[in-house]
Amino acid sequence: MTKQFWIIVLNGPNLNLLGTREKEIYGVKTLEEINAALKQFADENNIEIDFFQSNSEGDIIDFIQKNRDADGLLINPGAYTHTSFAIRDAISGVSIPAVEVHLSNIHAREEFRSVSRIAPVCIGQISGFGHHSYTIGLIALIDYLTDRDKKD
Amino acid sequence: MTKQFWIIVLNGPNLNLLGTREKEIYGVKTLEEINAALKQFADENNIEIDFFQSNSEGDIIDFIQKNRDADGLLINPGAYTHTSFAIRDAISGVSIPAVEVHLSNIHAREEFRSVSRIAPVCIGQISGFGHHSYTIGLIALIDYLTDRDKKD
Amino acid sequence: MTKQFWIIVLNGPNLNLLGTREKEIYGVKTLEEINAALKQFADENNIEIDFFQSNSEGDIIDFIQKNRDADGLLINPGAYTHTSFAIRDAISGVSIPAVEVHLSNIHAREEFRSVSRIAPVCIGQISGFGHHSYTIGLIALIDYLTDRDKKD
Amino acid sequence: MTKQFWIIVLNGPNLNLLGTREKEIYGVKTLEEINAALKQFADENNIEIDFFQSNSEGDIIDFIQKNRDADGLLINPGAYTHTSFAIRDAISGVSIPAVEVHLSNIHAREEFRSVSRIAPVCIGQISGFGHHSYTIGLIALIDYLTDRDKKD
Amino acid sequence: MTKQFWIIVLNGPNLNLLGTREKEIYGVKTLEEINAALKQFADENNIEIDFFQSNSEGDIIDFIQKNRDADGLLINPGAYTHTSFAIRDAISGVSIPAVEVHLSNIHAREEFRSVSRIAPVCIGQISGFGHHSYTIGLIALIDYLTDRDKKD
Amino acid sequence: MTKQFWIIVLNGPNLNLLGTREKEIYGVKTLEEINAALKQFADENNIEIDFFQSNSEGDIIDFIQKNRDADGLLINPGAYTHTSFAIRDAISGVSIPAVEVHLSNIHAREEFRSVSRIAPVCIGQISGFGHHSYTIGLIALIDYLTDRDKKD
Amino acid sequence: MTKQFWIIVLNGPNLNLLGTREKEIYGVKTLEEINAALKQFADENNIEIDFFQSNSEGDIIDFIQKNRDADGLLINPGAYTHTSFAIRDAISGVSIPAVEVHLSNIHAREEFRSVSRIAPVCIGQISGFGHHSYTIGLIALIDYLTDRDKKD
Amino acid sequence: MTKQFWIIVLNGPNLNLLGTREKEIYGVKTLEEINAALKQFADENNIEIDFFQSNSEGDIIDFIQKNRDADGLLINPGAYTHTSFAIRDAISGVSIPAVEVHLSNIHAREEFRSVSRIAPVCIGQISGFGHHSYTIGLIALIDYLTDRDKKD
Amino acid sequence: MTKQFWIIVLNGPNLNLLGTREKEIYGVKTLEEINAALKQFADENNIEIDFFQSNSEGDIIDFIQKNRDADGLLINPGAYTHTSFAIRDAISGVSIPAVEVHLSNIHAREEFRSVSRIAPVCIGQISGFGHHSYTIGLIALIDYLTDRDKKD
Amino acid sequence: MTKQFWIIVLNGPNLNLLGTREKEIYGVKTLEEINAALKQFADENNIEIDFFQSNSEGDIIDFIQKNRDADGLLINPGAYTHTSFAIRDAISGVSIPAVEVHLSNIHAREEFRSVSRIAPVCIGQISGFGHHSYTIGLIALIDYLTDRDKKD
Amino acid sequence: MTKQFWIIVLNGPNLNLLGTREKEIYGVKTLEEINAALKQFADENNIEIDFFQSNSEGDIIDFIQKNRDADGLLINPGAYTHTSFAIRDAISGVSIPAVEVHLSNIHAREEFRSVSRIAPVCIGQISGFGHHSYTIGLIALIDYLTDRDKKD
Amino acid sequence: MTKQFWIIVLNGPNLNLLGTREKEIYGVKTLEEINAALKQFADENNIEIDFFQSNSEGDIIDFIQKNRDADGLLINPGAYTHTSFAIRDAISGVSIPAVEVHLSNIHAREEFRSVSRIAPVCIGQISGFGHHSYTIGLIALIDYLTDRDKKD
Repeated sequence: MTKQFWIIVLNGPNLNLLGTREKEIYGVKTLEEINAALKQFADENNIEIDFFQSNSEGDIIDFIQKNRDADGLLINPGAYTHTSFAIRDAISGVSIPAVEVHLSNIHAREEFRSVSRIAPVCIGQISGFGHHSYTIGLIALIDYLTDRDKKD
Repeated sequence: MTKQFWIIVLNGPNLNLLGTREKEIYGVKTLEEINAALKQFADENNIEIDFFQSNSEGDIIDFIQKNRDADGLLINPGAYTHTSFAIRDAISGVSIPAVEVHLSNIHAREEFRSVSRIAPVCIGQISGFGHHSYTIGLIALIDYLTDRDKKD
Repeated sequence: MTKQFWIIVLNGPNLNLLGTREKEIYGVKTLEEINAALKQFADENNIEIDFFQSNSEGDIIDFIQKNRDADGLLINPGAYTHTSFAIRDAISGVSIPAVEVHLSNIHAREEFRSVSRIAPVCIGQISGFGHHSYTIGLIALIDYLTDRDKKD
Repeated sequence: MTKQFWIIVLNGPNLNLLGTREKEIYGVKTLEEINAALKQFADENNIEIDFFQSNSEGDIIDFIQKNRDADGLLINPGAYTHTSFAIRDAISGVSIPAVEVHLSNIHAREEFRSVSRIAPVCIGQISGFGHHSYTIGLIALIDYLTDRDKKD
Repeated sequence: MTKQFWIIVLNGPNLNLLGTREKEIYGVKTLEEINAALKQFADENNIEIDFFQSNSEGDIIDFIQKNRDADGLLINPGAYTHTSFAIRDAISGVSIPAVEVHLSNIHAREEFRSVSRIAPVCIGQISGFGHHSYTIGLIALIDYLTDRDKKD
Repeated sequence: MTKQFWIIVLNGPNLNLLGTREKEIYGVKTLEEINAALKQFADENNIEIDFFQSNSEGDIIDFIQKNRDADGLLINPGAYTHTSFAIRDAISGVSIPAVEVHLSNIHAREEFRSVSRIAPVCIGQISGFGHHSYTIGLIALIDYLTDRDKKD
Repeated sequence: MTKQFWIIVLNGPNLNLLGTREKEIYGVKTLEEINAALKQFADENNIEIDFFQSNSEGDIIDFIQKNRDADGLLINPGAYTHTSFAIRDAISGVSIPAVEVHLSNIHAREEFRSVSRIAPVCIGQISGFGHHSYTIGLIALIDYLTDRDKKD
Repeated sequence: MTKQFWIIVLNGPNLNLLGTREKEIYGVKTLEEINAALKQFADENNIEIDFFQSNSEGDIIDFIQKNRDADGLLINPGAYTHTSFAIRDAISGVSIPAVEVHLSNIHAREEFRSVSRIAPVCIGQISGFGHHSYTIGLIALIDYLTDRDKKD
Repeated sequence: MTKQFWIIVLNGPNLNLLGTREKEIYGVKTLEEINAALKQFADENNIEIDFFQSNSEGDIIDFIQKNRDADGLLINPGAYTHTSFAIRDAISGVSIPAVEVHLSNIHAREEFRSVSRIAPVCIGQISGFGHHSYTIGLIALIDYLTDRDKKD
Repeated sequence: MTKQFWIIVLNGPNLNLLGTREKEIYGVKTLEEINAALKQFADENNIEIDFFQSNSEGDIIDFIQKNRDADGLLINPGAYTHTSFAIRDAISGVSIPAVEVHLSNIHAREEFRSVSRIAPVCIGQISGFGHHSYTIGLIALIDYLTDRDKKD
Repeated sequence: MTKQFWIIVLNGPNLNLLGTREKEIYGVKTLEEINAALKQFADENNIEIDFFQSNSEGDIIDFIQKNRDADGLLINPGAYTHTSFAIRDAISGVSIPAVEVHLSNIHAREEFRSVSRIAPVCIGQISGFGHHSYTIGLIALIDYLTDRDKKD
Repeated sequence: MTKQFWIIVLNGPNLNLLGTREKEIYGVKTLEEINAALKQFADENNIEIDFFQSNSEGDIIDFIQKNRDADGLLINPGAYTHTSFAIRDAISGVSIPAVEVHLSNIHAREEFRSVSRIAPVCIGQISGFGHHSYTIGLIALIDYLTDRDKKD
């Protein structure tokens, strides 16, 4: 049976360390656990889902370009959130609907973290809900795609 | 049967016009329709839920203070998002866990809209998903409260 | 006989004190005298005209929303001129053609007074002509409405 | 016996919660207790004193206007300190000698709190002495009024 | 019969192209048509009126200096609005009461257009009403001059 | 009989000229008269009090360090208020509770005067009450010390 | 035989001194030599070409307006690059496709030189190639015009 | 026969998508087509030319370092233009004469795009001419190298 | 007998009005009187001196270029002081030693007047001494030229 | 015979090193030589003159206060020019007419040097003429004093 | 014999070119020579030491993560110093004590070089001592680790 | 035996309190202990060393000037780091090679502490290593002097 949507989940620098570093900020779940939960949710909802993590801005852009036929992108750009116009251009270039998520509340930390270079080319941004940010980000992405298909 | 949580939903200035103004930005659903959907979700999840909308900064603060025993606050502060240190102080004063939501992607509009005076005292912020911002905001709030109770 | 246009005149905080305070800046006419002159002009020109003054940002927004069927809005937002994105959103939300007026020349006083958060959603701005700002603001508004109707 | 001076004491948003919220910042005394102490001091010094608290910017302006015959104003504008040009205009409009007070040291907290839009139209500003800020603010106001009367 | 007032109308750079360029911003009337309307209004109100347009900052200053005995100045400084301290000094130097007008709403365009170097030395500023800005500017100027004469 | 508290009163640059210069800003009392009044108040309240004035930033720091056993510091840093991180470090280094006072309302003068480099390490700041600023500053300091002792 | 395109070449203030001043920055070629080379290139490519240089902002605007039927404009605005909104408005007003050229690399000099007020209304900007900037600017302009005609 | 010059052509992030994304901004030609045209031009002018594209900042620096014996560098740094001091250091480190090119007019888009971190270490910058930017950039680079050789 | 030096004296916009406008700022001497005094001083010191005043930025540049063989330039750029990079480039282009003078103390007026775009290419700047600024400016210029000749 | 005026000459930090350090910036004359020349000029013009140099901000203020009966102050505040509000207050406090001088052109060096905290309370500022700055500063001061006496 | 500490030495972009480029800024030693000297010092002090250089931000983060068990990190982030929040997060994420070193004095060059995004998560920063920066950085790191162990 | 180098060690305001104040920031060693360690190191390395501490900016400058024949300067300017252009000028004036040291990591504290006015005229800066900052600063200084002598 064909899946309803194909969604890619992209994590940026240092997110591979989740659950092992600065747990008071980022929580105790590892990225693998987060991805497993997303996978289960996707399976239950007939969504094809792929995962990628990289510390390299260039690899992140490569991945976005190579998967440009995906229906949606769930992205936590990590620290590149605040500096990468290149990832921004990649997302707007391939025109994948994207949702930006953050584990911590980026609006309640150092000032530089409250600015996102990526958010202006996304559908929306979710921040502050720990690992739940990914789950509700996925829901929001599916809601968006479903609404869009209805309009067609 | 006692409800699991009591959540208040607060909408700021001009949000009573939803569905009737600038639909290309804010969508076609009225606030009543959004609230009805939240009510249904709350009923299904054993959540007590109350709604309030006001164009007045003072009334919004009054409401927060009067309902300080609520378990959670779902708030779309409208244009007060960008200026109201008073609402910020109200939320941090009564210590209700709060989730800030926005229909439009505030990070993709005029520059003044990307700054929130409220977000630093909230659990997190969700913006850009139209009426879905409320639904996933409610899920995120319940997730937070459930996690918190587990820890106790 | 039906009036040609229905125009609402809205004055913000402290303008009820006109003619009684800081006369060297704001002039000696009271708001009642200004409104009476506008009323007379309106009567002579077959314009229905209503007046409202409030010190409350929320009440100002309420009034704009409730009178959204008016043909035009003449507004002196007082000190809210420089801070109220909420009044701005109300005006753009209800789509009433609006003219912003000021008694004093806001471009020749403290720096903070030269910035208007409201003007970008108005037809135009008039400042510096004392009570005449209202009269010529009304003329400008009628000119605009008349031109617009001609084009239809 | 006629009172020597009539002084109004005005508290802005969230100050009704004093003694119940964030005690490590604002102290343990309730606003009622603070006002009671001011009342006793006033009685002992032949001062007529009235109290008002509101979370609404508009109501605060209304109150100032209605009590414009008072000899002095003791005001803690709360969070409106940092944004309200409208309260500033109200004070300078009615020309009541005013003293601005703050419980916490606003110059030692978040940067936005160190700017007062109200202070430039007051006699002076007192911040950081907890509930004592009100008492010494009242002393300072009486000193000012007494000096002024001497000069006449 | 002596004219009541002598008013000069000064248009800055590119305004000679009115009605031929960027009509969606500046309207369809030519400068000649605008001036003709002003002339007619002046004639009807016993006003002597002279017109000047130049693309040269220096010529504009020369003109102001040479006509320093005029009773009033109606000026649209065009793009020099935002940069010319020299024109500002000319106006304040000769002490002619001046009214600054703009066809478009300069507060709703590029940010640099919202700043006027000229306005602080004028009676007031009018912007956004197309060719009507000139007419109402002339009315405002005559109102000002008439009021001033009454006071003498 | 042992004094209750030992308080040092420190005046910075140009304050030795009080009562002789710019009286419209700083008042007619000399520093000697102000100090005499403080001395009398101190005597009546069983407070040991010492005075120091210097135009030298270094001498001010020396004095603070040498009197580090004092119970409290009443300081008017004069123009060093706006620049001296060194005096700030001296105060926080010796941990004397300090109250910053100013004769004029520093929030109502040139912009540079509204910033205090010293205030963030003080209990609080008092400005605008002429020579009364010292008296009420002393009261505030004693209040603080008394409260602190109660808590021990 | 009709020329393919009519192009005007406009040089701003001080460029008449080329080859005689600050040769280490601007090179040794005189403006006449540069123009002669452009003329030869134009002749070889069936382009009609006209030249103008002025130190006067007003004359530059006059020239642009008078030659508004030209097919293209090659402009080195000299120091007016960084300040002249009036030249910018002239170019956008007459809608001539324009190429901005600079002899020196304006992005590698004083900071004020890196900002161009003119570039936003041009096709593009070329800077840093000495007298070659003109030649390749002319090529770029012809390329643009040729492409445009193809599309028609 | 030895080639006259060896030139490397370097394209940064997302430029591999040319001709397939956002064509209204970047044009319809693919990078392969642009490179083919450059290759043909190089062949005709006895220039050895090599091409490289990468989405990775590090790979771009590696490439510059490895080809440091090239006579010239034609570079479109894409979004790294606005952030990469590292690429800037690479170019100034190896001392290759470089020309920065952009397809779109970076001075007429979002403000962040008008700043180049790379341009200060290049000969010059060309922006806005679509695929022609590369061609005229190559001409400019050859002109520069030819001039330089003449001087030796 | 040959004159020792040839000095040109250049006055910018509105300075032709000296002695007739804003005398409290600029003094009561006319420009003719100031020039006459300079002429007399020059005659006594064997200096050839020429005078020029213009309200036009372009004419000022023309004059500087045409008199580029002068030994020195005494310039009061008027309001162009704060904006004219073009006059700055003219002075540095022709390499005439220049002294910038101002009648009023530009460092004690509006903030925009304290910045000079011209001073960085002058020997020095003199401001605040009324008509004496010209005389001592001339002395300073002659001192400079005399010193320079001694070194040769 | 009584001297006409008593003038004090005050040099700030590091100016005692004149003629021995950074001669390319500050010249080869020692401070003693400069003072000797000023003394000679003073003697010839019946001026009493006193000299003081200090590296200490406090000593400079002390000196100004102690010599407050002087008729004029010639001051080179050295690096304190850019930071000392305390010296500024001293000068405005004692109301001595002051002339600020600088050897180098402070408007042509590092940006921080172009701002003077002292100049706003001086008659005027002279910078850039090496040791001549002092001489012409003295002339300017005497001119000022002479003019002032004439008006009395 | 077990080594006392294991230290990793990390060099960022372009530092592989040391000794071959811009020697007047960065010195004549190659990175190999610097590393050899560090190795010898480490051997003599019973320190295990590893070296890594990369031009890629991602590879640098990978290396830090993979070597997270090291006792200390000596890092010269090159140009990433000024932009990389991602490297900063990597260092704070793995909690390795880090010392930031620079060959040149970054506080004495272009303004952008004086800001470090990395330093806030390091023990300290050393800049300006050429290849000695590495040696003394290593000493500082060992001192820190030794002190820390003593405290345990 | 003649010492190899003569080095002066200069500590600014409040550093005499080391080991007694804010130990969590500045450590437990007193300045005497730090100096003793430096003395011992100097003795072992044939270095003459002198120590000075002052809270006075002027005394610090005096000391630098008086010891201008020293071979090197090790300076911790304390809070003057962030404000003193006068100490900066003293160091550059006497041309002593200087090393700036700080006990705490000034790049990881309040924002104002990250800016050094002194560092641009020093060889380099070391911050964050507690008392070790002095020792390694001394090593760095000796390294620099030794290298310099080798080159001669």
